[in-house]
Amino acid sequence: MKLQNDLLIRAAKGEPVERTPVWLMRQAGRILPEYRAVRNQLSGFIELAKTPERAAEVTIQPVDILGVDAAIIFSDILVVPEAMGLPYEMIEKKGPFFPQTISTDADFKKLKKADVASDLGYVTEAIRLVKKELNGRVPLIGFAGAPWTIFCYMVEGHGSKTFSKARRMLYQDPMMADQLLQLITDSTIDYLKAQVAAGADIVQVFDSWAGILPPEQYKRYSLSSIQQICDAITEVPVTVFAKGAFSARQDMRHLNCETIGLDWCMDIQNSRRLIGENKTLQGNLDPCALYASDAEIEKATQHMLDQFGQSRHIANLGHGVYPDTKPEKVKVFINTVKAYSADLRAKAQV
Amino acid sequence: MKLQNDLLIRAAKGEPVERTPVWLMRQAGRILPEYRAVRNQLSGFIELAKTPERAAEVTIQPVDILGVDAAIIFSDILVVPEAMGLPYEMIEKKGPFFPQTISTDADFKKLKKADVASDLGYVTEAIRLVKKELNGRVPLIGFAGAPWTIFCYMVEGHGSKTFSKARRMLYQDPMMADQLLQLITDSTIDYLKAQVAAGADIVQVFDSWAGILPPEQYKRYSLSSIQQICDAITEVPVTVFAKGAFSARQDMRHLNCETIGLDWCMDIQNSRRLIGENKTLQGNLDPCALYASDAEIEKATQHMLDQFGQSRHIANLGHGVYPDTKPEKVKVFINTVKAYSADLRAKAQV
Repeated sequence: MKLQNDLLIRAAKGEPVERTPVWLMRQAGRILPEYRAVRNQLSGFIELAKTPERAAEVTIQPVDILGVDAAIIFSDILVVPEAMGLPYEMIEKKGPFFPQTISTDADFKKLKKADVASDLGYVTEAIRLVKKELNGRVPLIGFAGAPWTIFCYMVEGHGSKTFSKARRMLYQDPMMADQLLQLITDSTIDYLKAQVAAGADIVQVFDSWAGILPPEQYKRYSLSSIQQICDAITEVPVTVFAKGAFSARQDMRHLNCETIGLDWCMDIQNSRRLIGENKTLQGNLDPCALYASDAEIEKATQHMLDQFGQSRHIANLGHGVYPDTKPEKVKVFINTVKAYSADLRAKAQV
Repeated sequence: MKLQNDLLIRAAKGEPVERTPVWLMRQAGRILPEYRAVRNQLSGFIELAKTPERAAEVTIQPVDILGVDAAIIFSDILVVPEAMGLPYEMIEKKGPFFPQTISTDADFKKLKKADVASDLGYVTEAIRLVKKELNGRVPLIGFAGAPWTIFCYMVEGHGSKTFSKARRMLYQDPMMADQLLQLITDSTIDYLKAQVAAGADIVQVFDSWAGILPPEQYKRYSLSSIQQICDAITEVPVTVFAKGAFSARQDMRHLNCETIGLDWCMDIQNSRRLIGENKTLQGNLDPCALYASDAEIEKATQHMLDQFGQSRHIANLGHGVYPDTKPEKVKVFINTVKAYSADLRAKAQV
């Protein structure tokens, strides 16, 4: 089905757009009362993610309520390790917790490559429902965690400031680290291909813990897996968002992907120079800017748009929207992107 | 008193040294059984920091046991907000916690500039004891938190992945943020001057949460306070360690300080290019490298020394040594720095 609003896809491919497309990481969930109403009917986050009808419902909510230019499937990056044989819990206000972790060869041998059809069918089913319901209004973004980030949770077992247990394996058992990363990478490729087959119009890889590795290790243990994913996904555009990967920006210009996400601490001009002109950049307003007055949000958003310029940009925050952000403030951001970026282009044509 | 081993001071000033000096952030405490023996006699971390005789004892331990080229006074960056009127607790395995935080003007008005003589005399007393006991063997490093990092804890009340409450104030009440940062800066300058008067041979400013601000906010809300501190401390060399401040490196070349610390994720060559030749660089081995075999630690340390080159470098980890690191592994790192850096210089003279 042809998309009615394909701004995001055109911007990703570097084609001309009438205005800058805009969406928010974590737009499905957290901040919307309509989301909390759905979630409160279920036992929690994981049950919601595993119930395709409800996952589809909360995926579409921000399209209707906020007016974003894309939906992103409501799910979680940690469904992949679960499908590999490592179940997890989501502990309210604390985050994910894996009762078992990977530290020995015996632990590793218990894992399997994710069988997407049998173990992650609830995600592809939700994608099919969303596509049907959206009926071509906006594109649907599929996603997965980068193998390094998934590795962090599988070895550490929970969030951490340093992930020193996960990083320790890179020094103590680099062979096992390579094997585990490859199994995650293979699972992730199958998973993203299934999302695309189910209807995802573009996919994003989230490397949330990119910022904790020294540059040489980042290349070897993370960028190489991301490269495999980018090379494997040929049907739709790919976006790579590696939070905190300052030192890797120059290498990311060689990734076989269309879009690179910038976090809110990355300087825009410098990132463009390092990444080059052949990628679309996505981001990167400070999520805390949405705590400001409407006038200040408009100013900050316009300043961001001025810095990115009018080509090859997808507007977003530089991090997932924070849970206590007011939806009205998100709308100010979205509406400013739409109006100001259209204005800039109209002026440029005079 | 003249220092017998003044390698650290000469390296900081850019003077020639026979070999690269080496010390570790968090060397006093955590990893040494001798430290835990002292600490277990007291009620906890804060009591230890406030008991000058015992603080002095654990400050000197790593000089004797590990053979580092400097002592760093055993204390905590959060003694400054406490002296400003905001007491805190150190919760085992969780970190610092402030029962009261700063969010309104009324909260701010309750604060005062720290009275160093009356409220932080235990630190200067510990410094005097250490200096007497060290008897000129190695230099003593004094330290304080950067005002932005202290601000984070005073507003947020505890550690956080995003410090979104602290960052929110920059958008919602920049005037109060400026006032609070100035009060912290003034207190910190007095505090560091008192440390120098008591005998500190060099001081380091730790900006642990430098990495969570967008570049323009980092300049305005953090670098400006650090600059005031650097300008005020004229008696001894100053080191600035701003963890995660990737985008600020070019601006840091203009700081009125001798040494810039690099974290383990900062590329060495690129950092040297951005910071310039007129600063000493300190760091930056990945603390997780000390989990490796002795041979791998030697290799990684030599690789680091090769990258920094032979002038204007102080060897260190790129982060505080992690609590579960074995002291023998720390010794491998220290001994490799000493031997290999002396060798490199000897070879260069042939």
